[in-house]
Amino acid sequence: MRYAADRGRQKIIILGIDPGYATIGYGVIEKTNAGLKYVAAGTLDTPASESIPVRLAMVDEKMSDLMRKFRPDAVAVEELFFNTNVTTGIKVAQARGVILVCAIKECGRLYEYTPLQVKLALTGVGRAEKKQVQYMVKAVLGLKEIPKPDDAADALAVAVCHANTGEYKHRVLN
Amino acid sequence: MRYAADRGRQKIIILGIDPGYATIGYGVIEKTNAGLKYVAAGTLDTPASESIPVRLAMVDEKMSDLMRKFRPDAVAVEELFFNTNVTTGIKVAQARGVILVCAIKECGRLYEYTPLQVKLALTGVGRAEKKQVQYMVKAVLGLKEIPKPDDAADALAVAVCHANTGEYKHRVLN
Repeated sequence: MRYAADRGRQKIIILGIDPGYATIGYGVIEKTNAGLKYVAAGTLDTPASESIPVRLAMVDEKMSDLMRKFRPDAVAVEELFFNTNVTTGIKVAQARGVILVCAIKECGRLYEYTPLQVKLALTGVGRAEKKQVQYMVKAVLGLKEIPKPDDAADALAVAVCHANTGEYKHRVLN
Repeated sequence: MRYAADRGRQKIIILGIDPGYATIGYGVIEKTNAGLKYVAAGTLDTPASESIPVRLAMVDEKMSDLMRKFRPDAVAVEELFFNTNVTTGIKVAQARGVILVCAIKECGRLYEYTPLQVKLALTGVGRAEKKQVQYMVKAVLGLKEIPKPDDAADALAVAVCHANTGEYKHRVLN
């Protein structure tokens, strides 16, 4: 695990994660003195044909591969917004647990943000709609289009939220 | 991962798990042609002073150690009974995800049982009270006392449920 201080560094890689068990959104950005830069975004998917435990094992493997590919200096994971579907909620929470342990094992610098914090950080408005958040992701990162699918755009929003706020709710290590 | 068929074997080690993030109950039993035998039971605990992600990483480490110590032929994990406390439910579900991935990585033969299935398997009654289930754990395993704490007794009940039922709801591999 790495404990080097951010302050003196020229470049920090931030990995944002939108947790799920069927689809995990990820977004990678670079933070430099010049600002923020898009690196990559996409989804990690698990097939509905497999059992939930097997899909969780796949989440573990794919997340570990992702961490090793981009070697982030910080991982920012969105907290769960619990909706009315309890069964889905349990499944997503189980996957989120696996994702958090991966992030700690492979990076060590883990941060958590609520959906409200992400909206506020990007738009200044807690009740902002998804479209507004996505528009700001595109604007802040200087992209030509809003990244697709939504999960990837959401994950980039979490990464930008981390880059632009000093509120580190759960700075797990160091 | 081991795929050997149970049928011809003299001895099968079953690990039962009552999932949690603060306290995980575990119970280890042996199933032989002569019947069931108690091997060990107890809890894996994480300190409230640590953040949830760090506690999840501890769950991962302690579960892996447990698996390597007892080398179970099968792991039986209780499914979540979702109560009214959503915040606790998310935390427990996150830990359960970590536990399932550990079980798959270290054993490969994973089974899930609902609280109802466990009660039915031990007492024949779906609405059995906790005390009745614990009494049957003591009786079936020929123990002098009901194992303590409750989490350990509950985990032994899950292991006995697996040993005594043919209902393998989620036989993940093989």
